[in-house]
Amino acid sequence: MDPSKVVIPPMKDLTPDNITPNTIIINSQGPDKRMQYVLERLVTHLHDFTRETRLTTEEWMTGIQFLTQVGQICSDTRQEFILLSDTLGLSTLVENINHPKPEGATEGTVLGPFHTEDAHEFAHGDSICTDGKGEMCLVRCTLKDTSGKPIAGASVDIWETDETGHYDTQYKDRQYPDCRGILKTDENGDFWFKAVKPVPYPIPHDGPVGKMLAKLHRHPYRPSHMHFMIIAEGYDTLVTSLYIRGDPYETSDAVFGVKSSLVIDVKKVGDEAVAKKYDVKTDDWEINYDFVLVSAEEAVALKNKNAAEALKALGSTAQIFNGLPIADLD
Amino acid sequence: MDPSKVVIPPMKDLTPDNITPNTIIINSQGPDKRMQYVLERLVTHLHDFTRETRLTTEEWMTGIQFLTQVGQICSDTRQEFILLSDTLGLSTLVENINHPKPEGATEGTVLGPFHTEDAHEFAHGDSICTDGKGEMCLVRCTLKDTSGKPIAGASVDIWETDETGHYDTQYKDRQYPDCRGILKTDENGDFWFKAVKPVPYPIPHDGPVGKMLAKLHRHPYRPSHMHFMIIAEGYDTLVTSLYIRGDPYETSDAVFGVKSSLVIDVKKVGDEAVAKKYDVKTDDWEINYDFVLVSAEEAVALKNKNAAEALKALGSTAQIFNGLPIADLD
Repeated sequence: MDPSKVVIPPMKDLTPDNITPNTIIINSQGPDKRMQYVLERLVTHLHDFTRETRLTTEEWMTGIQFLTQVGQICSDTRQEFILLSDTLGLSTLVENINHPKPEGATEGTVLGPFHTEDAHEFAHGDSICTDGKGEMCLVRCTLKDTSGKPIAGASVDIWETDETGHYDTQYKDRQYPDCRGILKTDENGDFWFKAVKPVPYPIPHDGPVGKMLAKLHRHPYRPSHMHFMIIAEGYDTLVTSLYIRGDPYETSDAVFGVKSSLVIDVKKVGDEAVAKKYDVKTDDWEINYDFVLVSAEEAVALKNKNAAEALKALGSTAQIFNGLPIADLD
Repeated sequence: MDPSKVVIPPMKDLTPDNITPNTIIINSQGPDKRMQYVLERLVTHLHDFTRETRLTTEEWMTGIQFLTQVGQICSDTRQEFILLSDTLGLSTLVENINHPKPEGATEGTVLGPFHTEDAHEFAHGDSICTDGKGEMCLVRCTLKDTSGKPIAGASVDIWETDETGHYDTQYKDRQYPDCRGILKTDENGDFWFKAVKPVPYPIPHDGPVGKMLAKLHRHPYRPSHMHFMIIAEGYDTLVTSLYIRGDPYETSDAVFGVKSSLVIDVKKVGDEAVAKKYDVKTDDWEINYDFVLVSAEEAVALKNKNAAEALKALGSTAQIFNGLPIADLD
């Protein structure tokens, strides 16, 4: 850049007292008012954090090295920064802000780092897991909108670990998707499939996030659960999970994902008619759940209302554009 | 961890309103009260940032990917997270907090990512750069304490770029340290050496931090400067740089390092007696500077005073232990 074109105030003699407003000024030269607002808040919080903690040079270097290690362990099949976000409560916060649910709608929860884009499509009644994996569990669900109307033709993407608590992507020799699959809801909004009865498992904890948890005296376990992503035209996409009641980690999920409304019983099929209809045994496991989607319109309205209320409560004077706070237009 | 040993409150039904205190509780189980405080402030600011910006899922993912790229470009000779810290004003803030200077002491500035531990020791009058590099510049300095007493036997570590604006570590075929060296002050606290007249240069901007600067309409240049790290027993280590007056980037340093008291003139040697004594020509360049170190004791006292004042101004009730705020002992 031609230095004669620099129009910012002199960036010189910066002290703990003036570094923040000056950094914000130099970050505010572009046209993107949303980015300016995000950067302004980011720099303010980063600097306030540093001033409040009187962060030492050694702690700063520890942070630099930690973030470097988090980045370096990432690969096509491992996203350690998502694990970090998950374990610091950030992921569940982002999910809740972006997909608020009105009364009666199925609550959302963390996506986690194990969703993939390569799941195969299955027919109702199929097993999404290869033969011989874990204890078989029949999953029978309905999908409706908040008025009780069935939603047909929705895409239901399901993923879970095998009986050892590992996702397929955690195996080095993964050749095809396993314990994951996509179904379309039928004309009644129903879908059913077979899967492995979920088990608790630790998030990958051989890396820097695992070391952080150990230092914080936290365990890395997630309670038994099965992930769902439900996409239907005209509806807000639902990212959620069902959690098995009574799991030892039900109240201490390492990634803060459990919601009471998503905790379900795994019971025996029992009923012979059901067993016959779904080609399972009466003492096989069964899960039932009725999912309820919010219309895209209602979700956006609720999100905008929450944004306005949150900014008001924070005493923020930021303007809202397309539902998001932006820097003041000058 | 044995789930029966979990003594934290149930981590369930977490919402944007209660995720922060709950994350803080689960992070507060260990014995390290300083780490608890740092994590408490970190989680609070991270969550407040997210709530205030109403961070979208796409923005969150952009952040995850950006941090991953920053981590992945790091290597033995490149520290992109330090560049990120430098360009967000964090490094200068940390430096200023940790090494406050009383009136009369030489101000500190950012270390930057190019200091190495392998610089060779030189004798007074040596050149720290191999022959043929850039325009030769004689550097003559004194080192004293705040009472004016010379400091003998101090280690002065100097590093700078060559005339093309690159540090030795930026060359793939680097075989030995160049344009860097260590001198000991003599019995009068003096040291002198030859070096390359500093030139402005861009910080490495072919990576994610460079892309960020471009998006923010910021240039990546640092004004001409020479780095110094001065270590002497009983004194607070001084990390600083001298900046050349009149540099086109003097008031827009990409990493916020310039301080008026560190801006110096590069002049011609001129005096024939000086030229003869130091074996240079009268029209060679020359830099002079009188460095002043703070005693370790005074630096600690000033740091503790600043910490107490800053916490008071912030309305914080954190306790101070060894000069640093810690979580409440309970």
